Amino acid sequence: MPVFTRRLSLSTEGEDDIIDITGEVQQAVQESGLDDGVAVVFVPGSTAAVTTIEYEPGLAKDFPQMLERVAPRTVEYEHQKAWHDDNGRSHVKASLVGPSLTVPFEDKSLTLGIWQQIVFVELDIKPRRREIVVQVQGEERSVEGSE
Amino acid sequence: MPVFTRRLSLSTEGEDDIIDITGEVQQAVQESGLDDGVAVVFVPGSTAAVTTIEYEPGLAKDFPQMLERVAPRTVEYEHQKAWHDDNGRSHVKASLVGPSLTVPFEDKSLTLGIWQQIVFVELDIKPRRREIVVQVQGEERSVEGSE
Amino acid sequence: MPVFTRRLSLSTEGEDDIIDITGEVQQAVQESGLDDGVAVVFVPGSTAAVTTIEYEPGLAKDFPQMLERVAPRTVEYEHQKAWHDDNGRSHVKASLVGPSLTVPFEDKSLTLGIWQQIVFVELDIKPRRREIVVQVQGEERSVEGSE
Repeated sequence: MPVFTRRLSLSTEGEDDIIDITGEVQQAVQESGLDDGVAVVFVPGSTAAVTTIEYEPGLAKDFPQMLERVAPRTVEYEHQKAWHDDNGRSHVKASLVGPSLTVPFEDKSLTLGIWQQIVFVELDIKPRRREIVVQVQGEERSVEGSE
Repeated sequence: MPVFTRRLSLSTEGEDDIIDITGEVQQAVQESGLDDGVAVVFVPGSTAAVTTIEYEPGLAKDFPQMLERVAPRTVEYEHQKAWHDDNGRSHVKASLVGPSLTVPFEDKSLTLGIWQQIVFVELDIKPRRREIVVQVQGEERSVEGSE
Repeated sequence: MPVFTRRLSLSTEGEDDIIDITGEVQQAVQESGLDDGVAVVFVPGSTAAVTTIEYEPGLAKDFPQMLERVAPRTVEYEHQKAWHDDNGRSHVKASLVGPSLTVPFEDKSLTLGIWQQIVFVELDIKPRRREIVVQVQGEERSVEGSE
């Protein structure tokens, strides 16, 4: 089975920056030449995450505000005592949302809903350069009836 | 490598309806004819999610109540200002729980725990018709010693 | 396509024990002999979870404390009324963090960040013996130019 691994490069604006990467993941599927399979999106790092969302400005605020309720900036984090990098909350939010997403594709198209985008979520407190892994696995259909 | 893609159709009763789809996913594995691999369960849509849980009536209330603490209905969501569809909380909860689940199978059986079921979680505020993607990838063992 | 399924055995110390299993998952990749693909880590059970984190003592406290905010031990869980096993919070936390993680590998190496480890999160309230499924799928590169 063929496996295609791509890296996406991103510049983020820091905490709570949510970036739509649907187009890039779809492009990786196209470039693989495969017809059916999965695109695995993986964030190498412990202060960012990947998920899907309806990508619009309101939810781009609502989702971080929900995470702020779960891991408020006002809490004292043990991580801080060791590292003094002020991003304890970034780590726990990243571990909660998770670093991996698996999206099936069929006929070279991701099986996303109409109002559903694949997003990278920056949770670190400062702007970052990021690399995301997109790995495509699957099968190429044999062309039946061709000569 | 063979890839088998199935669609499950569901009718949900709206917010917090949790539906056990373990049997349907196991059936997709059986129908694939594969012996070992993974079943990827994916929700196309931004107001529902998939996870595993011990499927019993108590937890079917406890899990939504936990999500209500994280994304209360009393909060004002920015999503609401743009769309007025009253389901801002549905979106943020769906993005948090996540749309994809990957379950390995061995010898044609999902490697679930005894008290662990695969569940679709409806988070939208009204009853919905839903389609879920189940994609099975893996290998068929070669029969050794046969002639 | 070859599929390799391994089981890891763990003894946990009970609630909030976080165990680094990165070495074991990397070893499963090595043993598969595959060059590129994914390692799927799956927890069979409904009171434990898998994710990634920067594995250091501070975050090993911060992550459980965040989960305690989401599913406090002081809340009355419906699960308790049926089963009286005092672990309602364990179940809802496990369903939220999730039982599956998919990590790509390239050139036989997991594509993790430098400060990112794969961890098993025990959420049950007592010490447990656990089995984790690690399934490796992918391809072996053909050696080009060899004779």
